[in-house]
Amino acid sequence: MNTSQRRHQTAAVLVIGNEILSGRTREANAYLAAQKLFERGCRLAEVVVVPDVAERIVGTLNRLRADYDAVITSGGIGPTHDDITMESIASAFGVAVIEHRYIVQAMTEYYGKDGLNDGRRRMSRVPQGANLIRCARTIAPGARIDNVYVLAGVPDIFASQLEVIIEDFGGQGFRRTEIEVCLPESTYAAALDRVQAQYPEVEIGSYPGSFGNPPCGKICLSSQHADRLETVTGAVQSMLDELQTD
Amino acid sequence: MNTSQRRHQTAAVLVIGNEILSGRTREANAYLAAQKLFERGCRLAEVVVVPDVAERIVGTLNRLRADYDAVITSGGIGPTHDDITMESIASAFGVAVIEHRYIVQAMTEYYGKDGLNDGRRRMSRVPQGANLIRCARTIAPGARIDNVYVLAGVPDIFASQLEVIIEDFGGQGFRRTEIEVCLPESTYAAALDRVQAQYPEVEIGSYPGSFGNPPCGKICLSSQHADRLETVTGAVQSMLDELQTD
Repeated sequence: MNTSQRRHQTAAVLVIGNEILSGRTREANAYLAAQKLFERGCRLAEVVVVPDVAERIVGTLNRLRADYDAVITSGGIGPTHDDITMESIASAFGVAVIEHRYIVQAMTEYYGKDGLNDGRRRMSRVPQGANLIRCARTIAPGARIDNVYVLAGVPDIFASQLEVIIEDFGGQGFRRTEIEVCLPESTYAAALDRVQAQYPEVEIGSYPGSFGNPPCGKICLSSQHADRLETVTGAVQSMLDELQTD
Repeated sequence: MNTSQRRHQTAAVLVIGNEILSGRTREANAYLAAQKLFERGCRLAEVVVVPDVAERIVGTLNRLRADYDAVITSGGIGPTHDDITMESIASAFGVAVIEHRYIVQAMTEYYGKDGLNDGRRRMSRVPQGANLIRCARTIAPGARIDNVYVLAGVPDIFASQLEVIIEDFGGQGFRRTEIEVCLPESTYAAALDRVQAQYPEVEIGSYPGSFGNPPCGKICLSSQHADRLETVTGAVQSMLDELQTD
């Protein structure tokens, strides 16, 4: 990225694909992006999954790109009829889709002139004004237009493209601590609420795990500030110690 | 369900939880719902993940419940401070949250009067006018209000509650066939597009798998009508046979 440019502090992921909504495929790319953005300290504020329908992609993208610093999309940039992401993104920005000279050239070199069929040519198209997102895993690149990053749906290509763009996001990474607790959540809910109220700058969540006797779960704390995280983790630990000696 | 009532033909899933957006937890409930709704023949049209923030839950829910026949929510109905789903749903409908007499009674019986602490009492609250969604896995129930089904975030409780409500959805299940193809997608993209154009009533998707030489992937077809599915699967197979003998 241009280092003079401010990094994105909030982001949304827009997953495009009928295969997720029909339950055929378990979503993997938003999950990876969530982990990477957390490590980078960029707040992932929303994930949306929409079908391969142009108006749904356009409408959702226009909402998300207005609401957050950046949007990462996943899926729909292959050669087949159900791959309509590039056209839809262009339409959301009100620009044309163009064959990108660089990609046509790279594909011609790779496949030979006879190998550059219509399907591959289709993958050379990006919204006018977009920058390419190139990675070692594929000739067909992703694209960036304004604050929208258009990545592949195939998980290992998505991962490779995400590596390329991730420096545009965050800055000060989030850290997380987890405390295992073998008590019913309801027995510490009120006390935990008081700790959260005292330290609003550290995010505290409580997640049940097993429902044995006693049930066990985890209290998770996260923050961009290691010292605050340590303080509040200590406060939660003390609160639990007190409860358990009562 | 009331059998005189029309079943839901479109649905959205609203996942509520910072643990998904921070990458701590891989989403599992929308994935399960996607599979079950597909089997039931209800079209899952959108999945949204939002954080534990009331205004985000309220705004998203009000959009989704207007856009689709029904909304299934997941998460945020436990006893701790970060569990704000019931209040948020009530707020979206402009109704109060009430302690449900049945749940208070069931909890009192289960935990004893002294065991009914504030955290557990919190789990007896539902939006006014809601019906309970009870399942064997937990005393604390889910709730239905109008076309919104409020389920737990813990995956096995979610699954158990989903079983209880799934008959309200769909009717004629979708079926799917998959054809493995070891050819680059780009070589059959144009021909597949023609098959799709000829048979718009069957949904056809093409998904790359491995990128070996040759690359292998799958063409997936789905429809509510077994005979149409069979016809179009045959048409795709013939198209591939022709390509491979060329």
